[in-house]
Amino acid sequence: MTSGIKRKVIMGLGASLVSLIAASGVYANEATSERHAAAATQYRQALFQLVRSNMGPLGGMAKGAIPFDESVMKTNAVRLEQLADMMSDYLVTDTRKFNVETSAKDEMWEDFSDVEAKIEAMRAAAQNLASVVEAGDTDGYRAAIGKVGGSCKSCHDAYKAD
Amino acid sequence: MTSGIKRKVIMGLGASLVSLIAASGVYANEATSERHAAAATQYRQALFQLVRSNMGPLGGMAKGAIPFDESVMKTNAVRLEQLADMMSDYLVTDTRKFNVETSAKDEMWEDFSDVEAKIEAMRAAAQNLASVVEAGDTDGYRAAIGKVGGSCKSCHDAYKAD
Repeated sequence: MTSGIKRKVIMGLGASLVSLIAASGVYANEATSERHAAAATQYRQALFQLVRSNMGPLGGMAKGAIPFDESVMKTNAVRLEQLADMMSDYLVTDTRKFNVETSAKDEMWEDFSDVEAKIEAMRAAAQNLASVVEAGDTDGYRAAIGKVGGSCKSCHDAYKAD
Repeated sequence: MTSGIKRKVIMGLGASLVSLIAASGVYANEATSERHAAAATQYRQALFQLVRSNMGPLGGMAKGAIPFDESVMKTNAVRLEQLADMMSDYLVTDTRKFNVETSAKDEMWEDFSDVEAKIEAMRAAAQNLASVVEAGDTDGYRAAIGKVGGSCKSCHDAYKAD
């Protein structure tokens, strides 16, 4: 059992549950109880809230609702990259077996490598946005933001219920 | 008006609201509407959920409920540092005037420089934890985690309602 997998399991758990699971040696990506599934769902949704808070103003700029602001673009691009780096750990816990309120489709845990590929696309798009802003390539701002938004949409289309 | 302040205001807003505020030139740290306050509160709480998801397993290790795991400690320390870097922007929007469900005490926005000092203490504690783990200083693990937990507690004691 790699510590990577262990970390993914441990992350969504309170200390007592962690203790139980660590003691039993059961490590898997499936939620092991209703409580574990609820915590994993809550953390998953919190991560997406932060993604949303960073995408909101970028979307406003791409649509021309607000002026392009290099400082905001750079900061939010870095934050989106950091959130992308966390994302796999926050999405991997399979909560399908439990009754949790979620917009995540069951398909998300059928081929998680596809989810990881989509996360990598988001990370790369955020990194690209940071580079484009760093280079001061103003003509490329809209497209660079669009690429990040496209990475969100690609995953939502596949794995988020309407 | 610095772009830093602008960024803080823009972050919690939908595009249409951002447009309105950008057009009117009104930039401040106070929430400008119930909707703005609700969004700022939601994002604030999401950030703390992510902090919690990283502190949970570290707390379990410090208490001896689960074994110290260097990989988890390192990852979570880095994430806590990144979340600390974001925190001021997520807390600065003063939502006192609006009817939002929050555990944040009004005092949080009376002297925000104290909040920023407490955030810096958290960032430094997370960075210290990463260094201690990097150095393999196993005898220092418990104290290093305790320092991070202490930075949480210090802020909760001052600004979080029970």
